[in-house]
Amino acid sequence: MRDLRARWALEEAGLPYKMRLLEQGDQDQPDYRAQQPFGQVPILGEDGFVLFESGAIVLYIGEWSEALLPTDAGAAQWLLAALNSIEPLVMNVALIDLFYANEEWAKLRRPGAMEFVQKCLSDLSKSLGDKPYLDGDRFTAGDLMMTTVLRILKHTDIVTSDKRLAAYIERCTARPAFQRTLDAQIGDFKDAA
Amino acid sequence: MRDLRARWALEEAGLPYKMRLLEQGDQDQPDYRAQQPFGQVPILGEDGFVLFESGAIVLYIGEWSEALLPTDAGAAQWLLAALNSIEPLVMNVALIDLFYANEEWAKLRRPGAMEFVQKCLSDLSKSLGDKPYLDGDRFTAGDLMMTTVLRILKHTDIVTSDKRLAAYIERCTARPAFQRTLDAQIGDFKDAA
Repeated sequence: MRDLRARWALEEAGLPYKMRLLEQGDQDQPDYRAQQPFGQVPILGEDGFVLFESGAIVLYIGEWSEALLPTDAGAAQWLLAALNSIEPLVMNVALIDLFYANEEWAKLRRPGAMEFVQKCLSDLSKSLGDKPYLDGDRFTAGDLMMTTVLRILKHTDIVTSDKRLAAYIERCTARPAFQRTLDAQIGDFKDAA
Repeated sequence: MRDLRARWALEEAGLPYKMRLLEQGDQDQPDYRAQQPFGQVPILGEDGFVLFESGAIVLYIGEWSEALLPTDAGAAQWLLAALNSIEPLVMNVALIDLFYANEEWAKLRRPGAMEFVQKCLSDLSKSLGDKPYLDGDRFTAGDLMMTTVLRILKHTDIVTSDKRLAAYIERCTARPAFQRTLDAQIGDFKDAA
């Protein structure tokens, strides 16, 4: 779920936050729709100000955190690349695998969808090269977003079969803030269940 | 082409700029790939600083322009919604129509892809309501991006069959800056041809 992106950014920035989980059906209530037009999660609220779209939320948190979004580094371009150039191709394969695997169109389409994602990940891998992070030596909001996008394919070896990308994901998800995020998310879902 | 997004933002912001068109094959040259990992357009260069991803470029230009990105308005959330929540659904239908119309998978998939995009546009239309622009009375970078995304479906009546969205597109594209952008883009392509 995309709340992971917002939580991880808050953990990296070291900002305190409180989670409110939606109950079944909340996302279609008018008061929620007034805050999130598409009925999705997450939204971020702060003193009456409400923001939606995980990308916008991570950018917003980044403004509070020099570590996440050094202004000189073009971290926003990698965040946008993750969301607009890579995630759509990744999602096309993930949706086929996870929701439509038995449908005829999905079987016919998968090879083409795979070709797109593999070409794009190969470009990404070349661009990463020997750098630890996309923008160089420092982890930014761009790496945060790219990692969450690449993890959408964790049911396959599409990403991890590339050694550079495999090591990159490993490096990003080994961060203490990511581990705290996962633990907190799992804890919340256990509490809700 | 996505250079339209960057040009429009520059025209709205009233910033001077110079276009450099790629020649066939330029996008695969190592020096271009070093600036744009995926070989796409546009990139923005300024005093040796280079930025890629149309969304990141429009956000960057927005930082120079109070008109485009009022900091209090959450314009970034609509820009991100256009790029991450709406464009992927829009592109799925557009690619089927424009590139794969005769393929079996595309014929089987189109009704499902249509359903997604229509639901999402209906939510968008409700959220727009009686406001002239997504964030209220003022045109922002979010409207700029949303307009360019919705125009991807201009070969269909999917967007324009909704009266509110039709009027919204009309309103945004009637802006003098948009008209200057279109003219400039068409002029460049004529010069290149």
